[in-house]
Amino acid sequence: MAATGIVEDKNNNNWVVQSTEWYLAAYSAEGVPNSNHLKLRTVPLSLSYDSIPDDHFALETLFISVDPFLRTKLTGTLDGLYVQQYQLNQVITAFAVGRVIRSKDSKYKDGDLVLVPTAPVAEYSIIPSSRILRKIDAASGISLPDYLSSLGVPGFAAWVGIVVLGDPKPGSNVFISAASGAVGMNAGQLAKIRGCRVIGSTGSDDKVKLIKEEFGYDDGFNYNKESDFDVALSKYFPNGIDVYLDNVGGKMLEAVLNHVNKHARIPLCGMISQYNKVWTEREGVRNLLNMVGKEVRMEGFMLASYWHRFGDFAKDMEGYIKDGKVNSKNKINIGIESFLDSLASLFTSSNIGKVVVQVKA
Amino acid sequence: MAATGIVEDKNNNNWVVQSTEWYLAAYSAEGVPNSNHLKLRTVPLSLSYDSIPDDHFALETLFISVDPFLRTKLTGTLDGLYVQQYQLNQVITAFAVGRVIRSKDSKYKDGDLVLVPTAPVAEYSIIPSSRILRKIDAASGISLPDYLSSLGVPGFAAWVGIVVLGDPKPGSNVFISAASGAVGMNAGQLAKIRGCRVIGSTGSDDKVKLIKEEFGYDDGFNYNKESDFDVALSKYFPNGIDVYLDNVGGKMLEAVLNHVNKHARIPLCGMISQYNKVWTEREGVRNLLNMVGKEVRMEGFMLASYWHRFGDFAKDMEGYIKDGKVNSKNKINIGIESFLDSLASLFTSSNIGKVVVQVKA
Repeated sequence: MAATGIVEDKNNNNWVVQSTEWYLAAYSAEGVPNSNHLKLRTVPLSLSYDSIPDDHFALETLFISVDPFLRTKLTGTLDGLYVQQYQLNQVITAFAVGRVIRSKDSKYKDGDLVLVPTAPVAEYSIIPSSRILRKIDAASGISLPDYLSSLGVPGFAAWVGIVVLGDPKPGSNVFISAASGAVGMNAGQLAKIRGCRVIGSTGSDDKVKLIKEEFGYDDGFNYNKESDFDVALSKYFPNGIDVYLDNVGGKMLEAVLNHVNKHARIPLCGMISQYNKVWTEREGVRNLLNMVGKEVRMEGFMLASYWHRFGDFAKDMEGYIKDGKVNSKNKINIGIESFLDSLASLFTSSNIGKVVVQVKA
Repeated sequence: MAATGIVEDKNNNNWVVQSTEWYLAAYSAEGVPNSNHLKLRTVPLSLSYDSIPDDHFALETLFISVDPFLRTKLTGTLDGLYVQQYQLNQVITAFAVGRVIRSKDSKYKDGDLVLVPTAPVAEYSIIPSSRILRKIDAASGISLPDYLSSLGVPGFAAWVGIVVLGDPKPGSNVFISAASGAVGMNAGQLAKIRGCRVIGSTGSDDKVKLIKEEFGYDDGFNYNKESDFDVALSKYFPNGIDVYLDNVGGKMLEAVLNHVNKHARIPLCGMISQYNKVWTEREGVRNLLNMVGKEVRMEGFMLASYWHRFGDFAKDMEGYIKDGKVNSKNKINIGIESFLDSLASLFTSSNIGKVVVQVKA
């Protein structure tokens, strides 16, 4: 990694940087968030030694992970989402890769690359070192964006959903919605590693082609072309569904419940089709009774409850990446200014794979 | 137990009894089943030794358990219910207590009292001895109807739901719908034994009084008087719900999902509010997204998957009954002719506790 221009000034007792950051200007209960809700500002930030508390460090942000769950942090209510909300006028946070540029924790030294689950969406910040999830080995041969993709939020979500909660056996029939998205691409590959038959749904014919050719899915369908999800699932799952990793909720979940096998598992990773609506406007699932007869287990999960498993996950996943068993497709948008458009793009079906904002090279 | 008149004839080589039974005349997709669907007939049945295959026996039915899930066996479709359907023109089956009157299995002798999960709803029948779940000790001090109540289908369902799947801790907040029904009365008592705070919903003020006075519920409400279940649950669960044993589905389940605590468990025992409707007419649950943020586990169960635990359950429950910790309220209707009205009564809110048909004294 090349040192940035800023580092030249580090010995200056009055080291102050101008840091551009995204802050919450207004909550957004419905619809896709826009520039009324999230705004940019540039603030001076002192990085002089005295400005950094003990067990804190100065972080230079390199890459920011853009994930659908961030949407749920700016509704301003606990209406069905229950995640900690962003605070008005405060900088927002996201999963990120950054570089330690001044440390007051002896475990980290200047130049260390670190993975931070709740990093300010800012060029520079001063945060507690307890927020660091892991150091990144720059010589690992794995690209930094991959640490936010297969080795970050979506890869970990896929691993918890498929390996921990879904637990499919070889030959199990696995269905994954939003299959060409960041979670879906990782989940499909993890299920294939387990020897499953894996089918995905996604939003275009090109994406169907992609999940089959690049992510190893056995087959898939374009939900925009299916007028009746029940018919589609009958075709793709003549032997029923054993595991459904649900990323969308609503009508697709309802259709799946008409095709579940005995003791099917449905890990609920998120429900992107429902995020932009208030709850009384969401699509009701009418056939939960099917869960009784088929003894289905449906379980929601949040990564925060599984951090103690992150080491197991990272070890598995790094092995798969190095062996070429898991590939990640990353859409990298340049500049912190691109964060809002990147977030909005998650809700327009325009993306494939993982969306990352590159703040610094 | 007094011998019946029939036994006098046992040495007769041409021992034939007239047996009255209920058979399926027509499936019933919607509404409460009536005499168009289930009909009575009396058929001659040879109980002579040559008529009984090896490892079979002749059963004289004493008490029949009338359970809501029987409704799901006569829809004629697998529309969301997935239980084995009754066959047209064939005698229907139910959980029953009976007496062995002629055995071709050396493990059972004439006069043994037995519990049979799928006994013909008939005065007499010849069935495989493999259908016997357990022998009943006539000297146990426990009444025969209690073997169909706290020690039968509803008691076992309550035990699986509360002890195995719900697994509440002392002080947990437990909610039980259909609380004065056969499952609810047992479930509430089991949760109290675990040291929980237990609230029930039921269909009348008298039933609310009953669950508090006889089944140990801390409190309860009459759902027919509540215009907004959300408001009711806010009042009764200021600290949220940890375990919800769902017996009704629909709007109550939706309201509960607005009050769940982190990692709440929702065992789905049945959905009596939904049984008499085709699935597209059922009430959609719009707030399943809450399951993600609260990491809720919802799991359907059928007793057939838990028979291997029946011994553990029966040992626990017999102890509780003998210690006076579990009481059962049983509504006993006399005569096999009363079976259809007994079944229909489950859907009219007219019952309290367990409904049993007494076939023989």
